[in-house]
Amino acid sequence: MSFLSHSAVLPKGFKACGIPAKIKKNGKKDLALFYSQTPCTTSALFTANRIQAAPIKVSRMHLKSGSIQAVVVNSGNANCMTGMRGIEDALAMAELVAAGLSLEPQQVLVSSTGIIGKLLPIQKIRQAIGPLISGLSRQGLSNAASAILTTDTFSKIAFKKIKIAGRDVIVSGITKGAGMIAPTMKSATMLAYIFTDASILKPALDRALREAVEVSFNAITIDGCMSTNDTVVVMANGEAGNKRIGINSTEERVFCKALKEVCLELARMIVRDAEGATKFIEINVRGAVNDEEANNLAFSVANSNLFKCAMFGSDPNWGRIAAALGAVPSHLEWEKLDISLNKMPVFKKGKPVAVKNNKFLSARTVTVDIDLHQGRSQKCVYTSDLSFGYVRINADYN
Amino acid sequence: MSFLSHSAVLPKGFKACGIPAKIKKNGKKDLALFYSQTPCTTSALFTANRIQAAPIKVSRMHLKSGSIQAVVVNSGNANCMTGMRGIEDALAMAELVAAGLSLEPQQVLVSSTGIIGKLLPIQKIRQAIGPLISGLSRQGLSNAASAILTTDTFSKIAFKKIKIAGRDVIVSGITKGAGMIAPTMKSATMLAYIFTDASILKPALDRALREAVEVSFNAITIDGCMSTNDTVVVMANGEAGNKRIGINSTEERVFCKALKEVCLELARMIVRDAEGATKFIEINVRGAVNDEEANNLAFSVANSNLFKCAMFGSDPNWGRIAAALGAVPSHLEWEKLDISLNKMPVFKKGKPVAVKNNKFLSARTVTVDIDLHQGRSQKCVYTSDLSFGYVRINADYN
Repeated sequence: MSFLSHSAVLPKGFKACGIPAKIKKNGKKDLALFYSQTPCTTSALFTANRIQAAPIKVSRMHLKSGSIQAVVVNSGNANCMTGMRGIEDALAMAELVAAGLSLEPQQVLVSSTGIIGKLLPIQKIRQAIGPLISGLSRQGLSNAASAILTTDTFSKIAFKKIKIAGRDVIVSGITKGAGMIAPTMKSATMLAYIFTDASILKPALDRALREAVEVSFNAITIDGCMSTNDTVVVMANGEAGNKRIGINSTEERVFCKALKEVCLELARMIVRDAEGATKFIEINVRGAVNDEEANNLAFSVANSNLFKCAMFGSDPNWGRIAAALGAVPSHLEWEKLDISLNKMPVFKKGKPVAVKNNKFLSARTVTVDIDLHQGRSQKCVYTSDLSFGYVRINADYN
Repeated sequence: MSFLSHSAVLPKGFKACGIPAKIKKNGKKDLALFYSQTPCTTSALFTANRIQAAPIKVSRMHLKSGSIQAVVVNSGNANCMTGMRGIEDALAMAELVAAGLSLEPQQVLVSSTGIIGKLLPIQKIRQAIGPLISGLSRQGLSNAASAILTTDTFSKIAFKKIKIAGRDVIVSGITKGAGMIAPTMKSATMLAYIFTDASILKPALDRALREAVEVSFNAITIDGCMSTNDTVVVMANGEAGNKRIGINSTEERVFCKALKEVCLELARMIVRDAEGATKFIEINVRGAVNDEEANNLAFSVANSNLFKCAMFGSDPNWGRIAAALGAVPSHLEWEKLDISLNKMPVFKKGKPVAVKNNKFLSARTVTVDIDLHQGRSQKCVYTSDLSFGYVRINADYN
């Protein structure tokens, strides 16, 4: 896989643009547009949070059109808990883009990320729509990727080239991670947009996205806090000219694999850029009796503040891992449990293994391998450590 | 209610003692004994963690004797994940105490708190049992209370005097909170012991303890991390000479109320002494449609790192409270939602309320009032903020 932050490749028929529209006070880019010259087969997944931002409500509605051609995204304001006015503003964003591109508003998806509970400065967006549309280009992905960022410290782009029945197909994705800092309110939101020129049936794309998200964006946790604006969209415009990918075909498997790889790489980038993080942590649970237990055990460790602080301190503290595992109902028997940190066994068949020093934990990446030896289910999740930096950022502390 | 850390009162017929036995490296008190001159009606609740320490397994067994007269507790070592040897050591603690007090081992409960995965230094405990027993006294509660501490910064004792059918009855409790620091491994454990001279039927005592724990120890969270050693024990020796308290009697209600108050005060002390805490936070959820929703909503806020960091920074960040509420399934409609911080409305019927400054959040105590206006269920939980201190303590950071 290649990562091209400066020469990112868009699949055939897609253009993008990212510009500053003065929504952010620091003058950085904050308005992005993605456009396909032809209607796309589109799948999307949204936050499970009971509180959903206005653009999510509008996008859910517009998805029903079945012919999405554009996504407009602003950063700097989440347009969440903003009442009917918020819905009107999200609709206006879609309408402005549609008017400029000669589309129906129902062909435009809308996303917002940033501060919760403040009205969107729709006038600023209205003024920026002209330059945004005229700026659309085949080379615009990198600018668009930086326009959706909030407290991220780097742009997150991944892409993959595959062959589908003899045709070149590109899958390109961008994402943003946790964090939006403003004087008195903050929110963390994950947004991801994936574009492909593959031709694919809607049910196949839906399933591919669900499967890809399960092992990528749904397998990461920074702080266990769920956002009100999380969105993942995949748009397939078919311009690669491949025979349409159907359900249960060989081509579907090839496409699924590429989509998973792009999503996973984007998800890992979010964790690497987590607020205050000094370490990237991969937690592998193996030998669970079923998938639900594997999932619950892995997340119980990944969300344990005590474990995350220990990783910050390079402390090979298997006791905290064991306590987090025991905290969720499962078939765990600690007499059979194995725990390794960066391949160094620290707990083997229910017995502690003495470690000479903690140097093996000082790397920026920590892999935690947990084997229950009870069954055949496994789960891999990704998280970061809990550091002074996280507290500083989120306490607005000076 | 009175708090007597130096002149704590034990109910009639109870004695206690706390001494240093060199289990802790710093020479502080680490071995405690509680003794009733007559067998007690005893109820106990233990951690729901799948990994349970050896003393918990032994205590569960001994509780079946129905005639508990003593509890021996060590700090500095959790005797957890220590295999058969751990069980033998926990049994040995009970046997040593039983021999010295002319009891059966089954009449002795055992608790341990501290480092996970290290064998108990049973030889040191063996040597200390003589002085421990000969030191038992009516005035020993305060020493015993300090002998069960780990990283706690103060002893936690609460007591209440009530009248049961004309007789004076005393309910005295001690507890310890989160934190055990050792070079490479740490654990957080909550222990609580409540003693009363009330005469009470076992089913009434069981129910009273369950109800009291639900609104006290089960209503606090420091970091959402469940320990392997949590234990709450209540022992009633009947020496007050009251007519035995039965189920569904007026006397049962009086006793329940006193037990709840003692447990709640002890639980609140644990939160006040939480690792690194600068704030005590009370979260009241009202207007939920049922108790489960009220409970899940309250804990979702209490366990939100983003919320806890905001409280550390005195940031009136209702957006994070809303996001935490939305993260759990419930009948929440944000258009009806009210949120107040220290009685200052910050969100009212779905609309933000402007606040002039954050001075009202700088107090050491923060009360969060959340009203869903959907039903009649409510839940009150207690937590602390997430500070640099928490990270420092748990990362072993210098």
